[in-house]
Amino acid sequence: MTYKTIPNGTITSPGGFSAGAIFANIKAWKEKPFDMAILSSDIPCRVAAVFTTNKIKAAPVILCQNRLKNKRAQALVVNSGCANACTSEQGLADAEQMAALCASKLGLVSDQVMVASTGVIGTYLPMDKIGQGIEKIALSPNGGHDLAQAIMTTDTVPKEIAVSIEIDGKQVTIGGVCKGAGMIHPNMATMLCFLTTDAAVEADFLQTALKAAADVSFNMITIDGDTSTNDTLMIFANGLAGNKTLREDSPGASVFQSALNEVCIYLAKRIARDGEGATKLIEIIVEGAASIEDARIAARTIASSSLVKTAVYGCDPNWGRVIAAAGRSGVQVSEARIDLYLGQMNLMKAGRVLPFDKQEASKIMGGEEVVFRLCLNLGKGKAIAWGCDLTEEYIAVNGDYTT
Amino acid sequence: MTYKTIPNGTITSPGGFSAGAIFANIKAWKEKPFDMAILSSDIPCRVAAVFTTNKIKAAPVILCQNRLKNKRAQALVVNSGCANACTSEQGLADAEQMAALCASKLGLVSDQVMVASTGVIGTYLPMDKIGQGIEKIALSPNGGHDLAQAIMTTDTVPKEIAVSIEIDGKQVTIGGVCKGAGMIHPNMATMLCFLTTDAAVEADFLQTALKAAADVSFNMITIDGDTSTNDTLMIFANGLAGNKTLREDSPGASVFQSALNEVCIYLAKRIARDGEGATKLIEIIVEGAASIEDARIAARTIASSSLVKTAVYGCDPNWGRVIAAAGRSGVQVSEARIDLYLGQMNLMKAGRVLPFDKQEASKIMGGEEVVFRLCLNLGKGKAIAWGCDLTEEYIAVNGDYTT
Repeated sequence: MTYKTIPNGTITSPGGFSAGAIFANIKAWKEKPFDMAILSSDIPCRVAAVFTTNKIKAAPVILCQNRLKNKRAQALVVNSGCANACTSEQGLADAEQMAALCASKLGLVSDQVMVASTGVIGTYLPMDKIGQGIEKIALSPNGGHDLAQAIMTTDTVPKEIAVSIEIDGKQVTIGGVCKGAGMIHPNMATMLCFLTTDAAVEADFLQTALKAAADVSFNMITIDGDTSTNDTLMIFANGLAGNKTLREDSPGASVFQSALNEVCIYLAKRIARDGEGATKLIEIIVEGAASIEDARIAARTIASSSLVKTAVYGCDPNWGRVIAAAGRSGVQVSEARIDLYLGQMNLMKAGRVLPFDKQEASKIMGGEEVVFRLCLNLGKGKAIAWGCDLTEEYIAVNGDYTT
Repeated sequence: MTYKTIPNGTITSPGGFSAGAIFANIKAWKEKPFDMAILSSDIPCRVAAVFTTNKIKAAPVILCQNRLKNKRAQALVVNSGCANACTSEQGLADAEQMAALCASKLGLVSDQVMVASTGVIGTYLPMDKIGQGIEKIALSPNGGHDLAQAIMTTDTVPKEIAVSIEIDGKQVTIGGVCKGAGMIHPNMATMLCFLTTDAAVEADFLQTALKAAADVSFNMITIDGDTSTNDTLMIFANGLAGNKTLREDSPGASVFQSALNEVCIYLAKRIARDGEGATKLIEIIVEGAASIEDARIAARTIASSSLVKTAVYGCDPNWGRVIAAAGRSGVQVSEARIDLYLGQMNLMKAGRVLPFDKQEASKIMGGEEVVFRLCLNLGKGKAIAWGCDLTEEYIAVNGDYTT
């Protein structure tokens, strides 16, 4: 690894970024320190983003998609507690006003401000509270930690990281925060992830690199198979590190891409591990698939199987469910070629059931991370997906969300 | 309706069918009255079937698919407790032997016997117990009820029905039993359903009619999104009612098809309602989709959403989850045209949120059947899907299945 993890790093670790948060009482659903935040850069940034594939898109997503055409922005305003989704024209007007209020506070033009929301669908933003909140937020170069808390919904822990790499002899930093919990699934979900970097990056490469990082991280995690209306992954690059602007063919491009991947994988795994009610991280490695796409599909299908998830929760080595999920995933599978491992324990070899020690298997499944490795022995496709176990607590959390 | 439901009807209600069951101790997982059964017809039958789409198919499925080429069979032997799946050549040999033992008992040639299994994947059939069980089973014209119990796994109630219709002035009966519980999903799942009729039906029409019935019933239910290796829907038609053989263009064809659909829908809804840990039936009606296929996909996606299922369990009118599931289903959706109803209560009109009484909505959701109707207002596609709520009990049942 050529990158260094910055102790206590967050979204304001890269140079020139500041943030702040406040409790604006948007949804009095539990004691939270913050439910609104602002991120700001000292100078305009190149911006790239990946959004939900859900055809019902929340107002802030529509707004950001439009503003992304400029490939430039300087700030972000975000709230939790209300998703501003399924709110038609009023919702769009509210999202625009939220950006305008933030821009006015920071002395920017409104289209330099991005907006994100997460929470309940189908209710309007309480614009009076939003306005008062924006007014009161105080920004500081250490405010990333507060922002990480402000975007949490049913998350139990904030998720943040920063790493540094060297490009052109300059120290470049990438920071990130995200929130996840329920409704996380391949192709983005009620997941908000904001990344910052002081690297100078050309806009098209920034977009390409972000999409590539998403494909090996956020698009490979699943909590419950649902995909939200609000998913947003966005990166701000302000160039203050002073490196020569990174392009796809720059010598530093691969170092930047690797570090970006690692930041995204770290955050994605933190989301999977913190799935609603989850007690364990599940890692599904699929190797030898006919193609990478097949490997991705199989890995995600297994990781999202309710039967696999409950078996992992119960430490029940009912590995047939892994094979059955691979079989229904639609990818090329030949039973007689399959090898399956639980951790280091070989359960199936060339399609034949191997005798195994159930007690020992249960013990392996009792760990914090449970890894299944499925070798299809058909080709060279490989992918890793992450999920979490499905527990009684998931039901409790989701059976009583709006009431 | 032109059909009559037969009181206490089952798979042996049509003329010329008998069945019997026994407890063969195949899997000592709980007190069950039976775990093996035989169904037999006095004379050879036309047979049609629909099987799992999972690429990993259990040995009995492979055997039946081969034997179905004859379009004729006279008996069925079935067990619960062991799925005989992921058992390679040994599994196939065991399934063949199971059929041969049954054929020998009944004085038939082996390829006139179909085989089905359900239970744990990856373990071999205990052939000694299977053999002893087959030997001891006593068949009777009332044995359908015992067969219905013998195929249960985590089902809490047996599922059976028989209806009669009139064709060519003859009384024709259709009977059916099924088992479901976990792992039920569109395109069949660990679902076994056996249908019998004394109607005379031409083989190709029997297959067409069965597939059509499956598409509006078993392929529209979902418990947990998993699809099993063993799903089998099979119909035996022995012709003893004496009607003129039904073909696609026969006058009685539509009456037969309607009755078959109703039998399958009844059984499918019973499966959905008896999903592992379920307390309620969820019915999702999608209307005005751009196509029937779109309506089917949207209805099934909503019915299988963990977030919708947990909200229904908790009587939480968080209807945004219904819209979000429709949005991610991949079908054509235009937010500004959507109407949504919970029972008779209109929650969204032309994409606009309507104010509603949360208490009243919670009350509606407290019923035994919760119906959401989504009008996409884009075309004429309509479909209904059924599912169940997701409860703590589902986790408990599935976290500890093999141990």
